[in-house]
Amino acid sequence: MKPMDSEMLREQGHIMVDFIADYYKNLEDSPQDFPVLSQVQPGYLRDILPDSAPDHPEPLKELLHDVSKKIIPGLTHWQSPSYFAYYASSTSVAGFLGEMLNAGLSVVGFTWLASPAATELEVIVLDWLAKLLQLPDHFLSTGNGGGVIQGTGCEAVLVVVLAARDRIMKKVGKNSLSQLVVYASDQTHSSFRKACLIGGIHEENIRLLKTDSSTNYGMPPKSLEEAISSDLAKGFIPFFICATVGTTSSAAVDPLFPLGKIAESYGIWMHVDAAYAGNACICPEFREHIDGVENADSFNINAHKWLFANQTCSPLWVKDRYSLINALKTNPEYLEYKVSKREEVVNYKDWQISLSRRFRSLKLWMVLRLYGAENLRNFIRDHVNLAKHFEDCVAQDAHFEVVTTRYFSLVCFRLAPIDGDEDKCNDQNRELIATVNSTGKIFISHTALSGKFILRFAVGAPLTEEKHVTEAWQIIQKHATKFIHNKKN
Amino acid sequence: MKPMDSEMLREQGHIMVDFIADYYKNLEDSPQDFPVLSQVQPGYLRDILPDSAPDHPEPLKELLHDVSKKIIPGLTHWQSPSYFAYYASSTSVAGFLGEMLNAGLSVVGFTWLASPAATELEVIVLDWLAKLLQLPDHFLSTGNGGGVIQGTGCEAVLVVVLAARDRIMKKVGKNSLSQLVVYASDQTHSSFRKACLIGGIHEENIRLLKTDSSTNYGMPPKSLEEAISSDLAKGFIPFFICATVGTTSSAAVDPLFPLGKIAESYGIWMHVDAAYAGNACICPEFREHIDGVENADSFNINAHKWLFANQTCSPLWVKDRYSLINALKTNPEYLEYKVSKREEVVNYKDWQISLSRRFRSLKLWMVLRLYGAENLRNFIRDHVNLAKHFEDCVAQDAHFEVVTTRYFSLVCFRLAPIDGDEDKCNDQNRELIATVNSTGKIFISHTALSGKFILRFAVGAPLTEEKHVTEAWQIIQKHATKFIHNKKN
Repeated sequence: MKPMDSEMLREQGHIMVDFIADYYKNLEDSPQDFPVLSQVQPGYLRDILPDSAPDHPEPLKELLHDVSKKIIPGLTHWQSPSYFAYYASSTSVAGFLGEMLNAGLSVVGFTWLASPAATELEVIVLDWLAKLLQLPDHFLSTGNGGGVIQGTGCEAVLVVVLAARDRIMKKVGKNSLSQLVVYASDQTHSSFRKACLIGGIHEENIRLLKTDSSTNYGMPPKSLEEAISSDLAKGFIPFFICATVGTTSSAAVDPLFPLGKIAESYGIWMHVDAAYAGNACICPEFREHIDGVENADSFNINAHKWLFANQTCSPLWVKDRYSLINALKTNPEYLEYKVSKREEVVNYKDWQISLSRRFRSLKLWMVLRLYGAENLRNFIRDHVNLAKHFEDCVAQDAHFEVVTTRYFSLVCFRLAPIDGDEDKCNDQNRELIATVNSTGKIFISHTALSGKFILRFAVGAPLTEEKHVTEAWQIIQKHATKFIHNKKN
Repeated sequence: MKPMDSEMLREQGHIMVDFIADYYKNLEDSPQDFPVLSQVQPGYLRDILPDSAPDHPEPLKELLHDVSKKIIPGLTHWQSPSYFAYYASSTSVAGFLGEMLNAGLSVVGFTWLASPAATELEVIVLDWLAKLLQLPDHFLSTGNGGGVIQGTGCEAVLVVVLAARDRIMKKVGKNSLSQLVVYASDQTHSSFRKACLIGGIHEENIRLLKTDSSTNYGMPPKSLEEAISSDLAKGFIPFFICATVGTTSSAAVDPLFPLGKIAESYGIWMHVDAAYAGNACICPEFREHIDGVENADSFNINAHKWLFANQTCSPLWVKDRYSLINALKTNPEYLEYKVSKREEVVNYKDWQISLSRRFRSLKLWMVLRLYGAENLRNFIRDHVNLAKHFEDCVAQDAHFEVVTTRYFSLVCFRLAPIDGDEDKCNDQNRELIATVNSTGKIFISHTALSGKFILRFAVGAPLTEEKHVTEAWQIIQKHATKFIHNKKN
């Protein structure tokens, strides 16, 4: 037996392709066999797997049998057409093929030399995507900026927090860490707080500005301006703003234009986390949501969320790549080559946390070429239209209410309170979602906004069609009858 | 057109399998068509690709044609049988299939609920692997510790530095960051320094203890003990030691047993970076190199390096999972579920930098099952034997010298100096490696040890056989003639 054998790869690869194609076929044709939210109990797998690795090889057939019988029942099917939870993490045929090819070629592009194509394709494809998003020229590789594919939005925000931290520390001295302050709204993704804590920012210096329904949960520029002034007066050093376009909770949009003006006037790094909604901005009709990105120092989308790029693929653009490189560069002797020092050569190891990196741009390039920009826009528009359809259903049912203004493919809604009893309303919505998800027929998730327990219906899985949305609404309505009946009593 | 269509996935997936199987076949059969180190010049790709994404779809056939003609010439072929640079990042049929299945199922296991199987299989398989490595019981999930798959060794060392930092800061107060000191040898991977800087540790508090040939570049325990005493006397707070088993430069081994005793006596977190060589420790005959891991707080190997798991797969075990979770946990409302709070439920988002995570344990499970432990041991033994073979060749040629004691599959060697002229010797070795790599027939890399420029020959690619090693040696000898001839003059 050898670890690699091209004919064995061929034979077993074909078997695996059929296994995966059948999985998608069955997800569509036999949804009853695939509860969207897994219905297993904690510890289920330990009871049915051996407690040590086998000494001798087991056949692929047996392994795939175990995948079907033991693993798949324990999956929450993110690619199911009836998956409406969190935000989707959409794959596609092209995204899947891209991952296959990446795993097949299996190169490690930490420096240019380690695989020139892996670096150069990333530079080129991120320029392509920047143009589709109409990002300002300073985010292109032709200026001082450029793009890099991070694994996740969490990594993206971490590296820019570090870049901004080290830039300001250079000015104010390394003992000023405890005076550094950062700003975001209270709707900002938890990864921002985590990134700051990782970077040694004191927790009490993380200002999460209050939002409410009056701005549809977007960050009020006035609050930011006041917070900065107040901090400056107290001797703090403001250095970072994280703005979000499409928050995880409710797809709220922070107003980039006024926030960016404030950031600029104080010389503060502004990062834009557009992990989910940024993808939609390849459509001209959604582009306005990132108007003002021209004043940002960095911008991030998760192409694995809603650009069908399969996990993981999180493009990040920065205005000044040297800030990033200054914070993250390493120079071990064993990676020193003359060519690496040439100005036109990018060494992506210095743009990220890890040294090693997969050839992720291959996948993005394949998605862009195998679909073309126009189809990608239409995939997104389809999802938005399906969300509109769901929103219309909710709006037409007096027992329910749409809670926030919908911009993209997320609908925030709930069973409406009866006689203004918010506590009871929260309990009913909690019970409703638990019941609905336990059917296994759909999976939706929840959030909290101004103390209200809110249901989230996010469209984005690659197989979802109108019939699935309609059916989802019928399931929700059906299980809500109990509470509605109670209302009438 | 739809983003997902099971029959299109089937059809195009089969085409891709054949493309990848042909790649491996050709890598073996037609090496002249695949220079191991890519011979392209910086900027080559921009000249041959369009400068924006297409509006309309392009056929897969055309894309694969471009992969062959434009991308593959820009690859450094890490999976080539004649790849001997850095350390290998080995794939295998099972590793490749695992990546395929992961990309196919495409679930996101950030919490238990988000895909119970993704979490539970990881817990189980890391227990399996811990047993193969004969790790102490406290690294198993059954105690206070447990395993988690990080993307890279860089992420692994970062999360444990943060865990240790936050543990000590809780004791000494958050304003003591500037007094924290860390220890490692001057051979330690650059990711350690980077992790410390990310965590806000002051650069001048990173003690990289000097090593030399007297300990074969392992960290001298006496130096550590002295450094700690001296730092304590000056009011510093020692909190972290990074020991390495198999350094990147020369596969040096730090003596874990005495270092661990010191760490224990001072209450300092000891991390063991065994990214490369740790994999070999599934063989009883290599296990002694991690003797003393019993006193470590954390231990890491890169299964994508030398356990044939395809990038990325970097298992990390910790003795106290709560230290990790305390440093890295987040609790956004939209991920709150009753089940997530049950004690037996693992939520891996709190064990790593990112929220999202791929189902990487699937791949490791498949590698362990499809090969079985005994074959994996033999794959590693084969590589070590090939390295021995190369070492013998070097030793038998008086013009060359083996520079360090070889423990695993890396041989550090060089053209020997003539008349003790070290500068000239360095220049000759620099010229030799440049010439050898420019042939495209093999790729070897270099390092520096005690000011000497050293050639590194690392065996680990999955197709490498004795004939490839023999041929590599012949190529090196042939291109060395020039210098040897000069010697005689």
